[in-house]
Amino acid sequence: MKSFLSVFSIFLLFSPVLALWPRPQKLTTGSTPLRLAPHFSIQFSDKKQNVPKDLQDAVRRTAQHLKDDKLQALVVDRGASSSAEVRSAKTLSSLTLAFNDASSSSKKVKSLSEDATAGIGNQDESYSLQVSEDGTAVLTANTALGLFRGLTTFGQLWYELDGETYTLQAPISIEDSPKYPYRGLMLDTSRNYFPVPDIKRTLDAMSWVKVNHLHWHVVDSQSFPLVVPGFEELSNNGAYSSDQVYTGKDVKDIVTYAAARGIDVLVEIDTPGHTSVIAKSHPEHIACPEASPWSQFANEPPAGQLRLASPATVNFTSGLIKSMTSMFPSPLFSTGGDEINANCYEKDDQTQSDLNASGQTLDEALASFVGATHEVVRGAGKTPVVWQEIPLEHNVPVGNDTIVMVWISSQHVGAVAEKGLRLIHAASDYFYLDCGGGGWVGNNINGNSWCDPFKTWQKAYSFDPLNGTTPDQEHLVLGGQQLIWTEQTGPSNLDSIVWPRAAASAELFWSGPGGDVKSALPRLHDVAYRFIERGVRAIPLQPRWCALRPGACDIDA
Amino acid sequence: MKSFLSVFSIFLLFSPVLALWPRPQKLTTGSTPLRLAPHFSIQFSDKKQNVPKDLQDAVRRTAQHLKDDKLQALVVDRGASSSAEVRSAKTLSSLTLAFNDASSSSKKVKSLSEDATAGIGNQDESYSLQVSEDGTAVLTANTALGLFRGLTTFGQLWYELDGETYTLQAPISIEDSPKYPYRGLMLDTSRNYFPVPDIKRTLDAMSWVKVNHLHWHVVDSQSFPLVVPGFEELSNNGAYSSDQVYTGKDVKDIVTYAAARGIDVLVEIDTPGHTSVIAKSHPEHIACPEASPWSQFANEPPAGQLRLASPATVNFTSGLIKSMTSMFPSPLFSTGGDEINANCYEKDDQTQSDLNASGQTLDEALASFVGATHEVVRGAGKTPVVWQEIPLEHNVPVGNDTIVMVWISSQHVGAVAEKGLRLIHAASDYFYLDCGGGGWVGNNINGNSWCDPFKTWQKAYSFDPLNGTTPDQEHLVLGGQQLIWTEQTGPSNLDSIVWPRAAASAELFWSGPGGDVKSALPRLHDVAYRFIERGVRAIPLQPRWCALRPGACDIDA
Repeated sequence: MKSFLSVFSIFLLFSPVLALWPRPQKLTTGSTPLRLAPHFSIQFSDKKQNVPKDLQDAVRRTAQHLKDDKLQALVVDRGASSSAEVRSAKTLSSLTLAFNDASSSSKKVKSLSEDATAGIGNQDESYSLQVSEDGTAVLTANTALGLFRGLTTFGQLWYELDGETYTLQAPISIEDSPKYPYRGLMLDTSRNYFPVPDIKRTLDAMSWVKVNHLHWHVVDSQSFPLVVPGFEELSNNGAYSSDQVYTGKDVKDIVTYAAARGIDVLVEIDTPGHTSVIAKSHPEHIACPEASPWSQFANEPPAGQLRLASPATVNFTSGLIKSMTSMFPSPLFSTGGDEINANCYEKDDQTQSDLNASGQTLDEALASFVGATHEVVRGAGKTPVVWQEIPLEHNVPVGNDTIVMVWISSQHVGAVAEKGLRLIHAASDYFYLDCGGGGWVGNNINGNSWCDPFKTWQKAYSFDPLNGTTPDQEHLVLGGQQLIWTEQTGPSNLDSIVWPRAAASAELFWSGPGGDVKSALPRLHDVAYRFIERGVRAIPLQPRWCALRPGACDIDA
Repeated sequence: MKSFLSVFSIFLLFSPVLALWPRPQKLTTGSTPLRLAPHFSIQFSDKKQNVPKDLQDAVRRTAQHLKDDKLQALVVDRGASSSAEVRSAKTLSSLTLAFNDASSSSKKVKSLSEDATAGIGNQDESYSLQVSEDGTAVLTANTALGLFRGLTTFGQLWYELDGETYTLQAPISIEDSPKYPYRGLMLDTSRNYFPVPDIKRTLDAMSWVKVNHLHWHVVDSQSFPLVVPGFEELSNNGAYSSDQVYTGKDVKDIVTYAAARGIDVLVEIDTPGHTSVIAKSHPEHIACPEASPWSQFANEPPAGQLRLASPATVNFTSGLIKSMTSMFPSPLFSTGGDEINANCYEKDDQTQSDLNASGQTLDEALASFVGATHEVVRGAGKTPVVWQEIPLEHNVPVGNDTIVMVWISSQHVGAVAEKGLRLIHAASDYFYLDCGGGGWVGNNINGNSWCDPFKTWQKAYSFDPLNGTTPDQEHLVLGGQQLIWTEQTGPSNLDSIVWPRAAASAELFWSGPGGDVKSALPRLHDVAYRFIERGVRAIPLQPRWCALRPGACDIDA
């Protein structure tokens, strides 16, 4: 019985983990205490006029976090046993930011926001961070975006104790860059509406773990909150209320806020399915609007799909997409394409008549529809993104540039890769944050979530991005994301259903696979507790007893 | 294809549901619009000096809710089509409260708080509420508690439209009383800590759906936040931090706040298991403290159980319980008793030596332990409450007064009833709010919640309180509760994991079984949306599209 005393002693002596998330590609640490000087500042090595304003703002936010975060080390004594060390530690008086030579003062430096929306393959997020034990720190990068990522890392190096902001692990040397260019979070604002501040808070949280894409599933069959220039009737008739809309000003606010945090906003208008709400202003374009019983016409109520075979509807959709492309600076644009219900079209006289007139099958009509809408996307200088059914289920011959989101199952990754198409991991069996909350259909006593069970952070974290692809297909994998469909989510539980779980894919696709959950958990606790310090309602993943004792609540501990 | 237009039309014409939860035993409504007068007031028929202060406070809170709740009818037009009717409706200028003759002014009226803590069988929660169509309203009851329940109902009668607070369903006549005397919610404040304001907000929410017991699982193996007079060392060493405690003042604040809302606080100190944390100040009383691997010594980490066979430990526990009984006015007190781990005692030399000395088996020693602690409970004038294992698994011959909580499975109800013991439904297969959130043990990639799947509100709502009992055992069923164990819950997600789900058992045990989920859901949406109006972060159970269209998202709609 004495044997477990030694285990307990180990916990007491346990060093606080270095609370970095995602873990850097290269990290070396020492064991020297270092604390921030009372007058600590972040400065640029270059003349200030060369520093983009959005990067200056990011510096100010980082400085504020360093002051406001009161994250104590997650160990039993919360760091108290290091008190003397901390008080007598050398101080760090400043962090110096510098662009590498290639991007030096002689040429115009691109803003962080420009970098953020430059598109996959055109972003350099790499940075180098050196914190010496004698009190100097230097952050260098080729781009404003790289410096921003490094600032985020710098903000995670510190714990708080008795008013001191400290690390016990100087010197710290980090060389870092992401393994995958696409790291995302999908938010559905149609099933339930989220006010702009909720989205901004989510963007902040995303940026803290280096997630660089908000996939905004902005409209769906349930509501149409987006005010689209020239198509205002859609939100006038389709938003839940006149308050529950995103105006052009709101969108600009959101995409600007996102870009200044290194995040590109990939908007989606799901077509031709998931469009019931359009019938409220354009019944002529929608087949089977609110048809009953809904389960015969759609995967969830209300039913209703764009009349994909009707030239007038193709024209309408193209115009709508064209207008939407002008609202979003992103080089990506999603036309959706999931869960197209054949029965809805079979029962729709207009669609049957259109198909007869053209002599096309439904899938041929879909190919024409997608072809037309994608030309609009490309005409706006953007790359089309679709859900997996478009190429896989309907064999639509999409252009080689098209990016495919794999959602139904991670088993379908290989099929997309075989078509030579680039893909984003978004599989429901790993990445759906809404699973496990019970069925939401009203009168179903024993109904479970369709994608039971709940997807834990461990599940997402353990995903292998290359499973399903051959070595010569690896370049097709752009990254991945977790997704929150909001049938049972509103502002009340947005934070708590997303965080800290969505940090799992953030690390997976930044740091690369192979991280083990055992060593990740203490750092993820740091993420959750730090998020709470910063006003994001992340949940505790375990009893605090476990959070304070790394490893003690592992299955074999 | 035209057929579904008629369904849609029905939704448009749908009357707003009368947003009562739980549904009253007798309810009749008319179809006359009525609105609150601008100077609407709540008054007592009797002289004011006979009205208890806590009831006066409740009246003020109700009046404030009537002003502040901006709950629009959950129909597509949010009530707008009734605008003319509402504007021209008669006004209700006051609600008059009166005690029935039996409790009239000649005798001292008990306070709401006294009623709330009077104990099972000693409470009269019945009331009668009459709202006429000509603008008068009368609420009568035998007790302050009855008037309070009626006030709560009155506060749910109204929707808001253009600044008017109205109903379309006057006259309204209600006769109401609960089917079961115990309607509870269990909160665990040991796995993670909840500040007093979170508990108070929860008490408010409970009172809005007439839940009358907070089962406070205040301490457990992970932390000991309760400051117990004479046993301060337990919280000094066992709380997560010196801030994360409930002082005597906090407890008084909580029980007073609860009682003034018709809620009795049933505190639990779980014994002899779930007591690891006591080893931090009294290692002499705890077997297998933090033993490793924990899975051999406990159902979750950390292991540690009171040395139930040791006279010194029995004495210590009795003293601790005695002190705790003095902190809580409730006539109920739980000594816990779940998940006692035999291996922990088998490997504990002290326990083996104690058993050898007394010649008792482990279960005999447990019977002595429970007998001793229950005598302390009874000595304090209270009724002991235990988890089901005490009588079922360990055959402890508890007194006939003992109340048993059935938690492992609803299948075990009959076994408790066969012993002639009163019981409270708390079964994990219906009522556990934490199920379905994934396994929380650290390094377990495919770990699911042990009590998967998620328990939906429909599941709890569909429970039959009499399933498992014979007609002559029905009197043993006191009621039931939903429970939130907080391994994965903190202040961030307390509201959202509990509400509106916990309203399911509130209605089940107030109104009685047999309610159908189809007609309940629209009213439950009202609960959720009203809670949000009042600052409780209830979640949307469905897309708002469904909430606005009663029945439209049923499985067969």
